[in-house]
Amino acid sequence: MNQHLYAVIMAGGIGSRLWPRSRTGSPKQFLDLVGSHTMLQDTVRRIEPLIPVERILVVVGEEHAETVLEQIPGMSRNNLVLEPEGRNTAPCIGLAAVVINKRDPEAVMGVFPADHRIADAARFREAIAAAAGLASDDYLVTLGIAPSEPNTGYGYIHRGESLDQRDRFEAYRVQRFTEKPDQETARSFVESGEYYWNGGIFVWKVTRILNEIQKHLDELYHHLRTVAGAWETDRRREVLASAWQQVPVVSIDFGIMEKADRVATIPVDMGWDDVGNWANLSDLLESDEEGNVVRGQGRPVLLDTADTYVYAAAGRLVAAVGLEGFVIVDTPDALLICPKDRAQDVRDVVQALEEQDLQQYL
Amino acid sequence: MNQHLYAVIMAGGIGSRLWPRSRTGSPKQFLDLVGSHTMLQDTVRRIEPLIPVERILVVVGEEHAETVLEQIPGMSRNNLVLEPEGRNTAPCIGLAAVVINKRDPEAVMGVFPADHRIADAARFREAIAAAAGLASDDYLVTLGIAPSEPNTGYGYIHRGESLDQRDRFEAYRVQRFTEKPDQETARSFVESGEYYWNGGIFVWKVTRILNEIQKHLDELYHHLRTVAGAWETDRRREVLASAWQQVPVVSIDFGIMEKADRVATIPVDMGWDDVGNWANLSDLLESDEEGNVVRGQGRPVLLDTADTYVYAAAGRLVAAVGLEGFVIVDTPDALLICPKDRAQDVRDVVQALEEQDLQQYL
Repeated sequence: MNQHLYAVIMAGGIGSRLWPRSRTGSPKQFLDLVGSHTMLQDTVRRIEPLIPVERILVVVGEEHAETVLEQIPGMSRNNLVLEPEGRNTAPCIGLAAVVINKRDPEAVMGVFPADHRIADAARFREAIAAAAGLASDDYLVTLGIAPSEPNTGYGYIHRGESLDQRDRFEAYRVQRFTEKPDQETARSFVESGEYYWNGGIFVWKVTRILNEIQKHLDELYHHLRTVAGAWETDRRREVLASAWQQVPVVSIDFGIMEKADRVATIPVDMGWDDVGNWANLSDLLESDEEGNVVRGQGRPVLLDTADTYVYAAAGRLVAAVGLEGFVIVDTPDALLICPKDRAQDVRDVVQALEEQDLQQYL
Repeated sequence: MNQHLYAVIMAGGIGSRLWPRSRTGSPKQFLDLVGSHTMLQDTVRRIEPLIPVERILVVVGEEHAETVLEQIPGMSRNNLVLEPEGRNTAPCIGLAAVVINKRDPEAVMGVFPADHRIADAARFREAIAAAAGLASDDYLVTLGIAPSEPNTGYGYIHRGESLDQRDRFEAYRVQRFTEKPDQETARSFVESGEYYWNGGIFVWKVTRILNEIQKHLDELYHHLRTVAGAWETDRRREVLASAWQQVPVVSIDFGIMEKADRVATIPVDMGWDDVGNWANLSDLLESDEEGNVVRGQGRPVLLDTADTYVYAAAGRLVAAVGLEGFVIVDTPDALLICPKDRAQDVRDVVQALEEQDLQQYL
């Protein structure tokens, strides 16, 4: 086991397409959407056999610090990296990198979204171990997910030159990243066999990613240095808040990965799913004979209804007649209804709520 | 004004197709489904210019007596006829008939469901006045509603021989009643021009209907006599309860109208609607540009949604994406979703709730 291997779990998202269960107060990653554990708990459990909880850091909004400590009993408050607000992935990862760098300048860090589902956890850990080896050779490594369909909602990785196998995993240089292609392009990507989905799972040396931030995002780097200088002082919170108002809002993909050299991918088939929306989620869960998935403590009465996901909160009765292919999410104060093929558009509901200043439902 | 003309409002239904707003505790007729008044209030207001509230009786379940008195401030408790339980329309009407007969043996009574909507109240009153004239000539009179479509949910009246005009209304002997025909039959009925919907609005002499009950429903007549004997005593409630456990459960249509002689109909075009289900109701209400009808104190967020009825209870947010032609009724404890063309089947939900012993949602 690599004593220098650290995990950074990014738990800052809001999961707006899983509204009205995912809310600003209790986002997706803190909910038991898929199984009996929350997605954060599943993420930690998945990593722990490879990286002990002492070397697992969670980057999260200040307001969710206690939630994380409740959900992950073994976690030290010291391992929480509290963001004043979300500024996309580059600042988040950069902040985690400076914090780890202070503990262990030889560290290799894996970056893991807190809100993904991975069916084959053993395979996941093998891939991360292999990626850590590649990262030790100064590669920026991203896991490549074999695409199961021409999904236009993901970023794609075009693999290039083949590298030496690592722990029986293929490895490739990355030729190019393409963000959310159109349908035709996505289809050609999938058919070529040379493309993978970018699952947002990265492994690299802490020093390497900080160098890349210095090179491509110098303003962010400047602020990270300031924050690093104040990290062990009682001014940490104040300095971080001030810096976070000024750092560029940019993704690690756009800010670094698309521009850096020596970027590699390790393809892995591990039953990955980003649980992006209600239709996605429904597909992951066991359905009854009619293809319905029923969740929640409430009471469903489904007549002549098929291929429908129903969440009913405790005490609520949800009656449906003659539906096929729908999503019904009935929470104590808010209800969502849409056909499954419109599940992506639930984010528009959240936007409408913001525009109409209906904060209590966000 | 005919001093012998009485009104009997039948307020005993449960409106199961308007679940989950219509409940056993607050059925359809006590709700403000159509406008700002309850359907019972609208029914009384519609009748009052013709028949003063002193001669309007309401037959209702014991449990709703106070509701009626609250909703109709001018009504005397003496004018409530409290049924121990619903036994269909023949016992209900028979009971009202014996009560009125005690007050005025020369009375003519009109029978009015409490849960219908009639747009042209003036025309309605003219028709009732005309029907009262015909009833004085010993006819059993039913109003005939000109059918606007081959609806298979109604009973149809086949008109026979033309009678003399009454107050400028046509009048016909009834040749035959047909309950809920199939689609093809309904179409032929409508095309012939000789059929009307049976709206369940009747006018007749009290003595005539009691004679008919004696003739065709002798068991009911026997019990009604017993009840009549105890009506002014302190045993009224007890005797009625006992009788009501024994009376046949039968409709006035099947029990009397289909068998009696000298039955007449007066056709009237008065914007009648029985507000039978949510799709019906939605059609009666003003819609927005997208054809959506929104009711309730809650908050709707409708994206790319058209031709949809939404009721949102206070405090509830109802979000819909990509729906067309749906009914969404979101109450504090129960939710209904169905396509409009399945609105008739909401009664199956109520039946399922009964079978599953979910009394709290009934």
